[in-house]
Amino acid sequence: MAYEFDEQIAVSRQDERTWGAELGAGWQVGGGVNGGYLLAVIGNALRHTFPDKPDPIAVSAYYLSAAAPGAATIDVGVRREGGSVATAAADLRQGEDARITALATYGDLDRLGDDVRTTAAEPHLPPPDECVPNSMAPPEVRAIAPLMDRFDMRFHPDHIGWAVGQPAGNGVLSAWFRLVDGREPDPISLLMVVDALPPVTFDLGMMGWAPTLELTAHVRARPAPGWLKVRHATRNVAGGMFEEDCEVWDSSGRLVAQSRQLARQPR
Amino acid sequence: MAYEFDEQIAVSRQDERTWGAELGAGWQVGGGVNGGYLLAVIGNALRHTFPDKPDPIAVSAYYLSAAAPGAATIDVGVRREGGSVATAAADLRQGEDARITALATYGDLDRLGDDVRTTAAEPHLPPPDECVPNSMAPPEVRAIAPLMDRFDMRFHPDHIGWAVGQPAGNGVLSAWFRLVDGREPDPISLLMVVDALPPVTFDLGMMGWAPTLELTAHVRARPAPGWLKVRHATRNVAGGMFEEDCEVWDSSGRLVAQSRQLARQPR
Repeated sequence: MAYEFDEQIAVSRQDERTWGAELGAGWQVGGGVNGGYLLAVIGNALRHTFPDKPDPIAVSAYYLSAAAPGAATIDVGVRREGGSVATAAADLRQGEDARITALATYGDLDRLGDDVRTTAAEPHLPPPDECVPNSMAPPEVRAIAPLMDRFDMRFHPDHIGWAVGQPAGNGVLSAWFRLVDGREPDPISLLMVVDALPPVTFDLGMMGWAPTLELTAHVRARPAPGWLKVRHATRNVAGGMFEEDCEVWDSSGRLVAQSRQLARQPR
Repeated sequence: MAYEFDEQIAVSRQDERTWGAELGAGWQVGGGVNGGYLLAVIGNALRHTFPDKPDPIAVSAYYLSAAAPGAATIDVGVRREGGSVATAAADLRQGEDARITALATYGDLDRLGDDVRTTAAEPHLPPPDECVPNSMAPPEVRAIAPLMDRFDMRFHPDHIGWAVGQPAGNGVLSAWFRLVDGREPDPISLLMVVDALPPVTFDLGMMGWAPTLELTAHVRARPAPGWLKVRHATRNVAGGMFEEDCEVWDSSGRLVAQSRQLARQPR
């Protein structure tokens, strides 16, 4: 069975260093294609570049211009290979337009040690059926964010006040997360998950799209099947920008991904 | 008056996209040249690349191999210019050896808005003269870390137990920080400051060099003159790696830089 996510991040080799992709219309939000989905497309091209190091360990993306649904190319320049990890640069373009420039280090998560001394606390979330599902979003919201139809998200009731005009003001969002078609999480899909929730600035009452300048994700373990817990937080909203930290916890209670992005505040 | 730091991060134009630098012997630690210093050298080449956007806003560096004192080149490839920010790739090499590949977005910090809604709490540190100075480090430590002679660091007494074999075990380090020659902090020096303290794993009793895989720094404001407060923390030590978050606060109490790195645990 082919899942929608796998079909839509698919890449085809065009030459030694160039991959082609077709960006899906279903991943749009606001004025462009979701940055996390684009990161997964780039991540998939890199996975095929390094067959024996298939997993993203660290990925940094700098967003240059908004992408549109349709054809794109990913140009990969290997910076180091050999040893347990490989590093490459990747540029996603549409025609002459540069959309994203990225760097990434890949490896094999299964070959890492099994030590876990995580002191970060797993976010508390009420059970999914006691949380607020994204399916309750009004039609006008879903119309400008078709992206949401890909996701089953269950928001912590304490972090969803913004949806009814009463933002909590803490700079925290958290939700259960899974893909609606049942596709289980893997290291590549985590690159999408870290930028899937609404901007954390919603919780501060700053509604609107928050363009990402830079996002770096660390994938720390292969996620177990099932629901993910995703938590966004910001602590430094200043100078027209904010940082958004994201943690992704899998169903076994492991902190499987961490990311931080620098974004512009919604106007 | 020329400060040592400025002399040692100096770059000279070699051609349209290449800058030359001379890496100073005084910035070595363990088996190589300090990664924060190298980031400041790259940052200086980028500053000269974008004269009207002189400040690093976000910089991501992927460390490929250990650098040695001596000649290096920084090759800059502009990815986007125009508008309020510019983005470039930069590769630091020594001869044929790639040391660091980086991406950066530059702008003008003075042109950012003056809103500050930082909810992060400024770290508490006793006054500098009640903290533990790095000048107390034993000669054998200073011999393998000449880097330390560039810095005046005053460690929080609660975070320095590792120096006498009694690590606190919290995964937190903090210290007052300034350059010994009195050179005041600026956005470029902050790129060095975020990787200047010992690895936070010292506080977990894991003594030894912790090679950085990736480090991303966000510079959020021009620092005021005077002492900086630097705080390192880790919450996810797993699979032979750890993340190290760094905050830099200036003497006015502003959170001026945030960074996160992914590093290998000391063996």
